[in-house]
Amino acid sequence: MLIGIDIGGTKALGLLVDPANGAIIARSKKSSQGSGQELLRRLVEIIDELTAAAHPLVTAVGLGIAGLTDRYGLVHYSPNLPNLFQFPLGRRLSKATQRDIFAINDATAGTWAEAKHGAGRGLDNFAYVALGSGIGTGFVAGGQLLLGANGFAGESGHMTVDIDGPTHITGEPGPWEYFASGHALGRLGREAAEAGRFPEVAGLVTNLKDIRSEHVVQALAQGDAQAQVIFDSFCAQVARGIANLVLILDPSRVVLGGGLAEVGEALRAGIDTWLTRLLLGSQHRPQVEVVLAKFGAESAALGAAWFAADAVGN
Amino acid sequence: MLIGIDIGGTKALGLLVDPANGAIIARSKKSSQGSGQELLRRLVEIIDELTAAAHPLVTAVGLGIAGLTDRYGLVHYSPNLPNLFQFPLGRRLSKATQRDIFAINDATAGTWAEAKHGAGRGLDNFAYVALGSGIGTGFVAGGQLLLGANGFAGESGHMTVDIDGPTHITGEPGPWEYFASGHALGRLGREAAEAGRFPEVAGLVTNLKDIRSEHVVQALAQGDAQAQVIFDSFCAQVARGIANLVLILDPSRVVLGGGLAEVGEALRAGIDTWLTRLLLGSQHRPQVEVVLAKFGAESAALGAAWFAADAVGN
Repeated sequence: MLIGIDIGGTKALGLLVDPANGAIIARSKKSSQGSGQELLRRLVEIIDELTAAAHPLVTAVGLGIAGLTDRYGLVHYSPNLPNLFQFPLGRRLSKATQRDIFAINDATAGTWAEAKHGAGRGLDNFAYVALGSGIGTGFVAGGQLLLGANGFAGESGHMTVDIDGPTHITGEPGPWEYFASGHALGRLGREAAEAGRFPEVAGLVTNLKDIRSEHVVQALAQGDAQAQVIFDSFCAQVARGIANLVLILDPSRVVLGGGLAEVGEALRAGIDTWLTRLLLGSQHRPQVEVVLAKFGAESAALGAAWFAADAVGN
Repeated sequence: MLIGIDIGGTKALGLLVDPANGAIIARSKKSSQGSGQELLRRLVEIIDELTAAAHPLVTAVGLGIAGLTDRYGLVHYSPNLPNLFQFPLGRRLSKATQRDIFAINDATAGTWAEAKHGAGRGLDNFAYVALGSGIGTGFVAGGQLLLGANGFAGESGHMTVDIDGPTHITGEPGPWEYFASGHALGRLGREAAEAGRFPEVAGLVTNLKDIRSEHVVQALAQGDAQAQVIFDSFCAQVARGIANLVLILDPSRVVLGGGLAEVGEALRAGIDTWLTRLLLGSQHRPQVEVVLAKFGAESAALGAAWFAADAVGN
């Protein structure tokens, strides 16, 4: 049996996974907030609970962390988990549980879940793009999970796509994430509503300031014309960054995950159409497939479990 | 003995390489212009000449091609070699010489030369950035040369860094290459001279329209203050694109090649300084080394020879 734990900004989600078929046998979810010590204690509880449910024994434990982490779970940087900065989470957890612990970034873990048992299965070169409140990405290149020198690969959401663009919360000018994340979709909806061009969504909230991506998605599902216009321009922004990634990495497929992937075919088709338009030389190369991820909110925990299984196997 | 041939927009450069130590035993250079048939005939001549100089026998022949090419030398797209479009160069050459021929993109070949015997030797993750009239890039990731699904990886010069930016010759808005290639440096010099701010370089030409990057470099070597200002802003543009690549791929080192690398330490130090400033979270990660390439104009031919040797060995 394998254990994978996704450590996000608010929750830690642990899964007990059967390596024979990838089935999820048990779940345990706790808060990830508070000090590093507090998180450590809760992770020990998660591992104990899941271990108690495991037959046969647990052979590997992996962590997927929302931030820059090395293989041993030392967190170098994480806007979502500020209390973990430079905290040797993996080593402490290893000591507390007497187990080897392996850690990777959460989007990298999601990529590995799709590679092993999802929409990237069997492919030597694909890109995973998780569209949530931010953008997380990961890559399989030449048949290998792309980790980079420090395990920090895949921070593509922060790549500059508009040097003269607006300043993001990171302080950087015009990163992809500013234009193409869930936050960006919410902002597009809010701006349209404030300009009086989006009555459908304005009717969903008491205060226009509260308009979020989910309201735009709701209006889209109801067939609202303005929602379609906004969503199409959003898909163009997502595709612009994906075009950059295709030029750099030449994947044969792009797998769309994250919360926004729940929109489904409208998201997939919109990005697909714009990618063909925006990708330089797209008429001269095999078409890059755009597909939806197989795994949703559990992808990082699943991928972390598989990553640990591979690490133990080596 | 190995043969590597770099096929650029004007010339084909063939090298005979000793696999024992990487030494170049013989050279042969011919025009690459004209039809695919004409190029084919000249490549046969190059291979014949170099083979005649080889003791022991030639065991592998590789091509480094300035364009999108597959492993067998079928050119999908090449602005520099328009007559080769969809021309099965590798297969025809294979038939004509009765040898296996392996092809890769020229910047990818340069990357492999640096990986095997140059500034990337021994590294599992590095980026090669060739600054010439355009920008070519290549990557070693997880110890492997990154080729992508079609052999098209490394077209990073075309990534969008300024969505609202000026239109490049490719028709795309604001690609990195527009701001950070040799052409870009020449344009910065020309604009400054036309505005009367660059007398040093204005004195080097009869017509300001003729100012090229080499004039800016010449003024820089002479210690001209305006040349330093221009060159520094150029280094910032180069570093902006490299910062994107570091976020995506997490290399431990960046190797600077291409014609502009002849500028030497001023280029290296300028990009180094700007990369630290521009890279998000650079204070939280090990510093990315910025170094000059070992190989100059012969890197693509050398790397193509090594690529073919590896392909034959597999």
